[in-house]
Formats: sequence, structure tokens, C-alpha cells
Amino acid sequence: MNYKVIFNTIGKIAIVLAMLLIIPTVLALALGETSWWALLATVGISLFIGLVFTFAIRPKTRAIFSKEGLIIVALSWIYVSAIGALPFVISGAIPNYIDAFFETCSGFSTTGATILEGARIDAMYQTDKALLFWRSFTHWIGGMGVIVFLMAFESGSSNRGMHVLRAEMPGPTVDKIVPRARSTAQILYLLYIGFTAVEIVALLIAGMPVFDSFVHSFGTAGTGGFGVRSDSIASYNAACQWIITVFMVLFGINFNLYYLWILGKFKSAFKSTELWIFVGVIIAATAAVSVDLALSELPFAQNAHDAVRHSAFQVASFISTTGYSSIPATAGDINVFPLFSKGVLFLLMFIGGCAGSTGGGLKVSRVALLCLAVKKELRRVLHPRNANAVKFEGKTVSEERLNGVARYFGLYMLILAAATVLLCLDGGKGLTIESNITAAVSCLNNIGPAYGVVAGGYYMYNWFSKLLLSFAMLIGRLEIYPILLTFAPSTWIRR
Amino acid sequence: MNYKVIFNTIGKIAIVLAMLLIIPTVLALALGETSWWALLATVGISLFIGLVFTFAIRPKTRAIFSKEGLIIVALSWIYVSAIGALPFVISGAIPNYIDAFFETCSGFSTTGATILEGARIDAMYQTDKALLFWRSFTHWIGGMGVIVFLMAFESGSSNRGMHVLRAEMPGPTVDKIVPRARSTAQILYLLYIGFTAVEIVALLIAGMPVFDSFVHSFGTAGTGGFGVRSDSIASYNAACQWIITVFMVLFGINFNLYYLWILGKFKSAFKSTELWIFVGVIIAATAAVSVDLALSELPFAQNAHDAVRHSAFQVASFISTTGYSSIPATAGDINVFPLFSKGVLFLLMFIGGCAGSTGGGLKVSRVALLCLAVKKELRRVLHPRNANAVKFEGKTVSEERLNGVARYFGLYMLILAAATVLLCLDGGKGLTIESNITAAVSCLNNIGPAYGVVAGGYYMYNWFSKLLLSFAMLIGRLEIYPILLTFAPSTWIRR
Repeated sequence: MNYKVIFNTIGKIAIVLAMLLIIPTVLALALGETSWWALLATVGISLFIGLVFTFAIRPKTRAIFSKEGLIIVALSWIYVSAIGALPFVISGAIPNYIDAFFETCSGFSTTGATILEGARIDAMYQTDKALLFWRSFTHWIGGMGVIVFLMAFESGSSNRGMHVLRAEMPGPTVDKIVPRARSTAQILYLLYIGFTAVEIVALLIAGMPVFDSFVHSFGTAGTGGFGVRSDSIASYNAACQWIITVFMVLFGINFNLYYLWILGKFKSAFKSTELWIFVGVIIAATAAVSVDLALSELPFAQNAHDAVRHSAFQVASFISTTGYSSIPATAGDINVFPLFSKGVLFLLMFIGGCAGSTGGGLKVSRVALLCLAVKKELRRVLHPRNANAVKFEGKTVSEERLNGVARYFGLYMLILAAATVLLCLDGGKGLTIESNITAAVSCLNNIGPAYGVVAGGYYMYNWFSKLLLSFAMLIGRLEIYPILLTFAPSTWIRR
Repeated sequence: MNYKVIFNTIGKIAIVLAMLLIIPTVLALALGETSWWALLATVGISLFIGLVFTFAIRPKTRAIFSKEGLIIVALSWIYVSAIGALPFVISGAIPNYIDAFFETCSGFSTTGATILEGARIDAMYQTDKALLFWRSFTHWIGGMGVIVFLMAFESGSSNRGMHVLRAEMPGPTVDKIVPRARSTAQILYLLYIGFTAVEIVALLIAGMPVFDSFVHSFGTAGTGGFGVRSDSIASYNAACQWIITVFMVLFGINFNLYYLWILGKFKSAFKSTELWIFVGVIIAATAAVSVDLALSELPFAQNAHDAVRHSAFQVASFISTTGYSSIPATAGDINVFPLFSKGVLFLLMFIGGCAGSTGGGLKVSRVALLCLAVKKELRRVLHPRNANAVKFEGKTVSEERLNGVARYFGLYMLILAAATVLLCLDGGKGLTIESNITAAVSCLNNIGPAYGVVAGGYYMYNWFSKLLLSFAMLIGRLEIYPILLTFAPSTWIRR
């Protein structure tokens, strides 16, 4: 194990975190908010840790294998969540450290689950804009990845290669856009910045306040879901809601396709099976939920446009794993939706975005490959001697890849089952099997909201459940293996 | 496709069903109950169908492949459920045919889910004992299998071989006890009859009325769960409850092991990994639920013995997928259990009994193999070039078997997801995501009870949901492939 390169890289991540924290610090000073010193103190702490790690620990060789890649990714994410939580604690905005850790894990993992009660968010919007900015900015960083960020902007020629990129990028396989990992990272971040800028401008034109436009664009870009109002997006106008709907879908699409579009390779971009499944599921689900809402007695969906708008918003929000809500606070929360709509949205939680997008969940291509593996097995049962190959994205899928997906799914469900039962140990008021299942699913898939009492926030869970869900969010964002293997003793024991 | 052998076999199954129906017919006559003519009419109908099919359709060859095996099993089970439902409809006890079909599917599939309200069951116990007997007798037949029954007791030398036996026996692999399939079937039924007889005697000694002892022994043997009182087993004495607990566990164990014990091969019987996992899970779950119950305020679990008794009963009932309940009606139903206990029992629903037992669920060995497949994948992620074999039951497990289990699990979860969402279309009063998830899980795993409003019975679902759940029960009992492939167009289209 190349310990030195691991800690050296984490040192660099610490410096990156310090630099990123300067932005909300400046904002706090500009707005005259008291949280500036809490943010500045955290800049200092992370800078100190970063300098010590990078200068004191100098690796002899930069050679790493998949093992080191996984550990670097896991520890980096735990580091940014653990230290990124400090401004909330030091400023007193979230005095309990575990609450702040939960909130920051939720931020970086782009989950958007919050322990803040609605009234508290409304209060912070008046006096703690810089902290709310930081909270949403973690979504933006976490969406594309902290290590992808380091790779894209680090000067010098060190090329940590695809091992690390693979461990951080979502999806069953990661295609290199261009041969060099560093150039891939740069292209991804440029596209990411461009799309975010377009969304900010669009929201400004639609009439959203400046601060809110930035924050919600970060939340959409990372498919995170932190808002700045207790009713999420419900009290903004219909144009803002439609813009966010469109961008939630756009950020749920594989960024490689955008690169192909920019290069003018429209034909190969539109050949993507995953894209069409994603679009097809969104259209079908929106249609189903629209009809269900229109037939319901809900006051906010009494005409066709409102029914379609709220349906499209919630469908885009759930499948992209963003978690924003357009349901008016006067009507209630997601629990008021009719049962069938709740069922459809629950299914969308599992699917998630496309591979190579900022969306969470199982990923569309993984679900598609799972279906193909199942189809192949059914054919094998029927004709034991006749094993036809299955195709996806125009190519024959190897047995190894199908097996990897099926086993990933098995592991995923085992983690979900364990998390659900452990949440049931919590005696929090109003918690039910429904709230605990949806909370576990929501955090593991990086969505945010859950059903039952948890629809309004995760504050009724105790410290153990919050810690458990925090790790579930990181496990989900990094697609299980990095976090799980970093905590497996066999990873560290030399044989 | 050898159509003739398929219909010829179903003809024989029809005759078997007619013969089995004679038992409740005689009971009805003996008790002077009016249902005798409804039962006799069904005997006539099934006998007529059976004779027509067996005499009119004579196959030229008895050669069958796995495809025909799957179809024979699926159609036989649909036949016995469809015709076995007639006595309830004709007698007027369950006037709606879909309700009766649900109840009979629930019987043969050993689920034990009922559409009868508690008061209706108590009323039938007074006037319709013969029909209640038939209802529970379907559990007993379904537990070991209708085709296994035919193979064991059919005179003549036709040997349909392992294809059919495999499709009907639960578990990821089916071992032949002895080389000939027919002898295997006979040994299994003899053991089954023996164990059932012992339970009947034990319950009689413990003070249970004669009729009740038979009915509950059938329900336990098949791990079904139909009772004759609205509060299930709650109002029988503690001795009866302990006896049923022990037998629920015993019928959840692989019958091959009992055969080894009888042959004196104790050492190889006790080497079964699956057995020890099963026992270990039961002990651990009972301990957890006991503590949880003892800490609760529940009036029926205020001393150590009561807490352990109710915990052991419910744990055995859920993991063996029987579905009996020992919770006093005065206290409520399974919904009164503390959240953690409900979570643990929910997990047990998925595990189910051992392969080769009458229990449903995924089966212990399949869950174990899934964990091994996941473990192997984790090792592969860590050391991509180093692929160690995994072992189970002392033998190296082939990649093919691990893949089969992982894909079976994927298919299983897809069916569960589809069933849950379709149940959400039902506007039945009080239905929630929790009740629908647990209802789908409960029926697919052949357990019976569910959480929420469904704890008392499935009567609030509409006809579509009942039909859906009926097929879920058959899909679960036959382990997906027979039913699914019989309804797949590609099975029937010649290429």
C-alpha cells in the first residue's frame, strides 16, 4: 500500500477545500454577516492540514493501483465532509457536530437531505446567507467530484490516471472522453461551469433573486436539492419551476454526450440507448403522475397545466435525484400526493440519472443492464444449451459486466436492508417502516426527501441514525465500493 | 413443444384434485354441513376434466425438456387453484370468484393471506368446518407440491424425471435423495406425512380440539398460515404455541437432512451450512425481538417468558413464511409491535426457509450465495487480477451458480417493484406505501400477513390487486420461472 501518496493527495484536497471556502468567506464579509470568522477559521484549519500533509509526506512514487484509488477517494470525501462541516458548528448555526456532518455529507454527496427545520432555513436566509451559500456550493463541488476538480485544476503534470477518476465518477463504466484523464476532467468541469452559468442567467431572467439563482443553480447542477426556503421551490413562479425542471433533466444526462454534441457528433450522441430510456421513463412517469394528480382532489393541481407542471417537476426531481419540491406549503408535502404517484416516484428513486451525470441512484444504464442480465437468465432457463449474447449501446455486453451489475445490485439491496433495520432502532416520534425505508432509499440514492414524518427533514432522527445516513449518502455517491472497502479490515491487512 | 404430454399430465392432476376433494366432501357429510354438494360438484367437474384430458389426449412420447417441465408445473398450479376455488363459490361461502381464487392460490402456494374478515372466519368455524378443512388442506398439498404428490402416488412406471421435480421444489438447486425421481418423491411425502402426524398428536396432547389440531398441522406443515380463529393462534394455550413454533422451524428445514438423519448419517446432516445459518438467524432474531418486546409497554409481553414466547413464535412464523400470529386480539395485530421488531421481521420475510423445505422466501442458501457473490465482487474490485473461488457447503461454488442466484435476485426485486407500484393503483381505504410494499413482499414470499391495514386481511384490495397478488403468490411458490415463462409469448412461438 502506497500510504504516502494517499495522504499526500488528501493534503492537496485539504488545500482545495480551503480555497473553495474562501468564496463564502468573502461573501460573508461583503454581506456583513457574523459567520465570516467561522468560515475563515475553517480556511485556516484546512490550509494548515493541507500544507502539513503535502510538504511533510512526499511519496517516492506516484504509482497507485485500484486499491489506493478507492482509499484516496473515500478518505477525501470523508475529509471534505468532516472539515466542511466546521463553519456551521463554529458559527453556531448548527451547534451539534453530527448534525453539521450530516448536512455537509448531504451537501457533497448531492443528497439534499437536511436536519434543518423549515423555520430555521427561513431564518438563516435573513442572517446567514453565506452559510447557505456554502451549503449549496458543496452540492456543486460534489456533483462533478472533488478529485475530478483537483485533477482538472492542479498545476504540474502529475497524472493520477483513470483509477481515481473511475472511483469517483458515477455509472457502471466510465468512458474516457479523451485519452488523458486530466483533459477529461477539464472538459467535464468546463461543461459543468457552462451549464451552471446558463441556468443562473435563465433563473435571473425568469425573475428569481440573484442569491437564490446561484444557490438553486448549484443545487440543480449537482442534482443536490438544498434550497433557501422552507417550501423548497414552491413559492417561486411557474417559469422558474419549469427552468429548474429542464435543468434537473439536463444534469441527469451523461456529460460525455454533451461533449459529443459540442464536437458536432450528433449522430453518435443521439444513438445513446441510455439517453432514450431516461427520456422515455421521464415522459411515461410524468404522464402517469399528471393523470393521477388531475384526478385527485389536490387544490394545486386542478387545471391541466398545474397538474403537468407539478408532475414534471417532481418526476425530474426524483429521477435526477435532486429532491426539490414544487408542492405548496399550504397543501402540505409529498405525503399529500395520491398513492399511485408516490409509488411511481418511489420507483424513480432507485433508477436515478444516467451514468456520467451528476445524478445519483442506481443509474439508468445499470438498471438496463440488470434487466438484460435477467432476460439472459430467463432465456437460459428456457433453453439451457442455447446462450445468446445480449447487446447494449450497440455492443455485445460481456458476461463479466452483467455479473458485476447483478452483484452490485445485490450488495446495494443488502446495504439498504441493513440501513432500514438499523434505522428502526431509532425511537424518534412518528417514524414508521415507510419513513425508514424511504429515508434509507433516499439517502443511499442521494435524493433527499423521504415519505412520512421525514418529508419535512431528518431532524427527528437520533445521532446514530444521522451518522448512519451520512455514511449511506457517501456510500451512494461513491457507488459503494470506495467507502465499504476502506472500512474493510482485509483492505489494510498485508498478506 | 410436446403439447400432448402437457395436457395429459394436467388431466392427471385434475383427477388427483378430485380425489383429494373427496376428503372434505366426506367430512361435510359426516358433520351434516350444507357445503357437501358444492364439494361433490367440484369433484365431479375435476374428474370429468381429468378423464377427458387423460383419455382423449394420449402423447406419442413422454420425452420432455425443461420448457415442457416449466409449463406443466405452472399450468398444474393454476388449474388446482382455479378449480379448487369452486367449492367456496358454489357453496356461497365466498360468493365472488376472484376472492375464492385468491384464497385458493393463497392456500396452495402456502401463503395464508386471506380475504376473509375475522368475524367471517369465526362464523365459518361454526357452520362450515369442511370448507375450512379444505382451505387448510390446500396448504398441506401445496407445501410438498401437487406434482411431487402425483409422482409419488401414481401407479405405473412413467418417470417424468427431475425436470418437473426441479421446477416445483424450492431452492437454488435440488438434490436427488435417491437416483430415481419417483422414489425421491415417495420418501419426501412419507417424511412429510410422518412429521404432520407427530404435530397433530402433540397438539392434541397439549389440549387443542381435534379439528383445530388437524387444520393447524396442515397450516404449519405447508408453512401456510390459514387458521380457524380470527386471532390466529393467539387464543390457544402457551404449550400449543410452543409446539407450533417448533414445527414451523422444523418444516423450514431441508427435508433431505431428515432423510440423512433417518439413515443415521448424522455427521453429514449436521455439516449443512444452510441449517446453521437458519438456526443462527432464528436465535439472533428471537433475542433481538425479545429484548425489544420486553422493553416495550405491550401488555402481553410483560414477563420474560411471554416476551420470548411471542418473539420466538413471530420469528419462526416469519422466517418459515408460515404467517401465524400469537398476538392477542385485545392488544391488536402485528402493527402494535415496536418499530425495530417490525423491521427485523420484515427482513426475515425475504430470507425464508431452507432450500428443499416447504418454506417460501428467497431461501437461506440463496441469500447466502448472494452474499458470497457480493463478497467475491468486492474482492475483485480490490484485487482485479486475483480471483479466488468461493466455497459453500464445503464445495467450490461455480461462477454460473453465483450468477444464477444474483440474477434471480434481480428478477425477484423487479417483480416486487412492479407489484408494489401496481398495488398503488388501488384506491382501497387506508392503503399506504408501507401496506403495499409489505403486501407484495408477503405474497411473493408466501408469508401471509402484512403491515398497516392489511394486517387483518386482504379484503380492502380491489379485484385487480387480488388477481395480481394471487399470481404473485404462485410466482413466489414456484420460484418465478415457471409462471413467468409460461406467460411469455416467446415460450410459445416456434422459431
